[in-house]
Amino acid sequence: MISTRRAAMTLRSSLPRSVQPLARRTFSTSELIPDEPARPSVHTSTVPGPASHAASAAIDLIQDSRTHQLVVDYEKSKGNYMVDADGNVMLDVFAQIASIALGYNVPEMMSLSDDKEFMTAALNRPALGAFPPKNWAEILETGLMKAAPEGFDQCTTTLCGSSANENAFKLAFMAYKARERGDSTFTEEEMNSTMWNQSPGTPQLSVLSFTSAFHGRLFGSLSATRSKAIHKVDIPAFDWPAAPFPQLKYPLSENTEYNAAEEKRCLEEYEDILVRGKTTSPVAAVIIEPILAEGGDKHASSSYFRSLRSLAKKHGAFFIVDEVQTGVGATGKFWAHEHWDLPKGEEPDMVTFSKKMQASGIYHKKSLRPRESYRIYGTWMGDPMRALQARRLISLIDSHSLVSHTARTGTALHSSLSSIFAEAGRGIDGAQNLRGEGKGTFLSWDMKDGPQRDAFVNAMKKQGVLMGGCGERTVRLRPMLTFGEKQMGVLSEAVRETLKGM
Amino acid sequence: MISTRRAAMTLRSSLPRSVQPLARRTFSTSELIPDEPARPSVHTSTVPGPASHAASAAIDLIQDSRTHQLVVDYEKSKGNYMVDADGNVMLDVFAQIASIALGYNVPEMMSLSDDKEFMTAALNRPALGAFPPKNWAEILETGLMKAAPEGFDQCTTTLCGSSANENAFKLAFMAYKARERGDSTFTEEEMNSTMWNQSPGTPQLSVLSFTSAFHGRLFGSLSATRSKAIHKVDIPAFDWPAAPFPQLKYPLSENTEYNAAEEKRCLEEYEDILVRGKTTSPVAAVIIEPILAEGGDKHASSSYFRSLRSLAKKHGAFFIVDEVQTGVGATGKFWAHEHWDLPKGEEPDMVTFSKKMQASGIYHKKSLRPRESYRIYGTWMGDPMRALQARRLISLIDSHSLVSHTARTGTALHSSLSSIFAEAGRGIDGAQNLRGEGKGTFLSWDMKDGPQRDAFVNAMKKQGVLMGGCGERTVRLRPMLTFGEKQMGVLSEAVRETLKGM
Repeated sequence: MISTRRAAMTLRSSLPRSVQPLARRTFSTSELIPDEPARPSVHTSTVPGPASHAASAAIDLIQDSRTHQLVVDYEKSKGNYMVDADGNVMLDVFAQIASIALGYNVPEMMSLSDDKEFMTAALNRPALGAFPPKNWAEILETGLMKAAPEGFDQCTTTLCGSSANENAFKLAFMAYKARERGDSTFTEEEMNSTMWNQSPGTPQLSVLSFTSAFHGRLFGSLSATRSKAIHKVDIPAFDWPAAPFPQLKYPLSENTEYNAAEEKRCLEEYEDILVRGKTTSPVAAVIIEPILAEGGDKHASSSYFRSLRSLAKKHGAFFIVDEVQTGVGATGKFWAHEHWDLPKGEEPDMVTFSKKMQASGIYHKKSLRPRESYRIYGTWMGDPMRALQARRLISLIDSHSLVSHTARTGTALHSSLSSIFAEAGRGIDGAQNLRGEGKGTFLSWDMKDGPQRDAFVNAMKKQGVLMGGCGERTVRLRPMLTFGEKQMGVLSEAVRETLKGM
Repeated sequence: MISTRRAAMTLRSSLPRSVQPLARRTFSTSELIPDEPARPSVHTSTVPGPASHAASAAIDLIQDSRTHQLVVDYEKSKGNYMVDADGNVMLDVFAQIASIALGYNVPEMMSLSDDKEFMTAALNRPALGAFPPKNWAEILETGLMKAAPEGFDQCTTTLCGSSANENAFKLAFMAYKARERGDSTFTEEEMNSTMWNQSPGTPQLSVLSFTSAFHGRLFGSLSATRSKAIHKVDIPAFDWPAAPFPQLKYPLSENTEYNAAEEKRCLEEYEDILVRGKTTSPVAAVIIEPILAEGGDKHASSSYFRSLRSLAKKHGAFFIVDEVQTGVGATGKFWAHEHWDLPKGEEPDMVTFSKKMQASGIYHKKSLRPRESYRIYGTWMGDPMRALQARRLISLIDSHSLVSHTARTGTALHSSLSSIFAEAGRGIDGAQNLRGEGKGTFLSWDMKDGPQRDAFVNAMKKQGVLMGGCGERTVRLRPMLTFGEKQMGVLSEAVRETLKGM
């Protein structure tokens, strides 16, 4: 385990707050993607164009196509550039909803097709909990565990972010009841009543989440999700509490007093819910994203997050950090919660991941492993093929210093966008509330309202840039980690032109 | 769509009840697996042996290893034979908990590594709901839709069986409320209250499942699962009802009167729950496995299942058939519910699949597609790579007539096991309640109790045969579809020897 620990330390040595680019290894996209297009090229009069529309119509016979943004030629896509079904070449700063780490068809990733271990795993998917491959420990140690956040020695793998969060909830519920139970085991009444979903075997316990949070759309995760009504309406949910997430004013530097008061107010209500829950439905777990992404890229201060963590501990709730979208380098640290500077011993109890990592799961401590076996169990329990893909990704991120590269790029991009928005001079009506400074390329801003945001995103498509929205009226940037100076130039120019034309 | 329909018909032409092997194409394992071992070979004194134990110990530093049965050398495994970390060659009739369709390292599957489309999909996983690949319709039409059960024109893809079931529940809840709502849309009160998990936006609706059922272990699916207390205890669950599943006596031919009365009793209680629910928490969906597998391979008559379906319809509940374990040929039909002979127009509302298909999802009708978009949505929404793997599997199952092969093999295997159990003459104390006649190789039997079952399964390992348990005291067979006469000889001989030695 020592080598694993040491490797993890290297990965975590991401950029300090005072960025000193000259002292650091620089990265050029061509190192990993030798033949990336230099710029977008759009030749259809609408985007999506006719071929995209035709492909969507064909899909619609079998699957709902109303949510399609573009239909893609994945074989032709390269690096930061997606090629659509019409042959348009688009700079992609949405990256499959923040789920592509390095780019499309990166040669060092594609060469996994020549790797016998990878192909064996891809085409012989095991039931990992019962029949793991003989080098599974090595795959984890040299891959997912190299990227483990400080303080974690366990990694429970799953197939997606929602099930990572739901299994984290299950671990928390089991540990909560185990702590109550002490040395004794389940009572007969518990074992009988749980077969009928009744107490005491099926307990009244809850997970506390926050307004605007997104943690997935299965039944447990959806109960903790508070993004949009259309995600939740008509679906039964657990009566779990939501605490208010601070609604900060931007720029942060000009609103320190207001924001501090807002965070204080929210922390008081949060603690109040933790206390009140004890008498009805105790809060076994608190779950939070370091940046509330789907809910509109909502930020809060590191001190706010440190307080959340310590209050959870004070009131006996396990603290889960959902890094499904924020993890794997985009914020300028490998894990976004590293920005919080939590004191040693005060790490989160669990950190969940998915998306850019390709593999999904939960980092946690061994103390959370249930005393009885078969309690966190299923057929696949993760996928060695995705773990091998993650290992290669982690190694490339490390060897090309892509986390510090992204921190630097983000600083420059924030500055460039600030200038553009100031220059556009549309203030309150145009692009506003630029946020994510110091958080790598995990940047976003608001437009006046939802329709204007959608109009902006569509106009950007015509400029050959593919971006995403979130929340009510937010534009979010989620470029890949190989996004650098060149792509930033293309993006900035397109933003400038698009704002001018609106 | 016409070609797809016709292809589906061909696939469904599985074996009629009166098996006439001479009139049918026969299949020999060597067609697909030229160099499969002829028999098991065990050279360690214990199974698992020392290398398996050492690998488990290394894994245990990071993941719970207590559920390991064997650690596997997947590169060396071939066809029906698994090679373990110690080099033992085992006939595998458990197949990764019923999740390997054709065998290990089947050349016609492994050649997908030379397929550019497959590798592009494997290493550029898209957010399917937003950015599908340009030939996604074709992939579905020539793959998953070719295997669609009669009456289905939609396939919503997911990443695992649990999320297939949970998304099926969501579709049912939405359709149930849409029917109630008629032409009107959500009220403001619904949209506001659902953000706090409160009614009316978050409704009191339920999913009815059956005692001994298994539908997954996330929060919605676990609420419908009734397999074992250890799967459920300490985990909050929805207060959803469970109807009794008939406890039939075997052999079925000697207990017709008792079994008919038992099914009648269970149907009455089932209907009673459907009726009573209407006043408190209406049943929006009924979910059932064609054979309750994890719960101990519990069977019922086709007429019982037809009644379940028609009573669900009568009382306004959507009817979901969970074919995660029973689907893809093992029962001698491509889908196990085809054994029920449901009248035309009385098909299930949804059929879920995963495991052997590698791809996961829900077959359903277009009428279940929600009127509003973004209601069944997420990042990945399935995996084109797994859909391409499924397409190749479906094509090979079709071209090698593996469903009728499995029906024939199952008939012969049932007969062979009947003789062995009769010959062993241990009746009530030994192997008993052999079941699955006419259901392909989806066979099982009981041992006296749990410890004797575990002892039998462990003794079989020493004979070089890997099998699984389920329920309290059941031994289940889940061989691959390439399992045939030769492998049957090995299995039968090992069962005979093991029973003798007990």
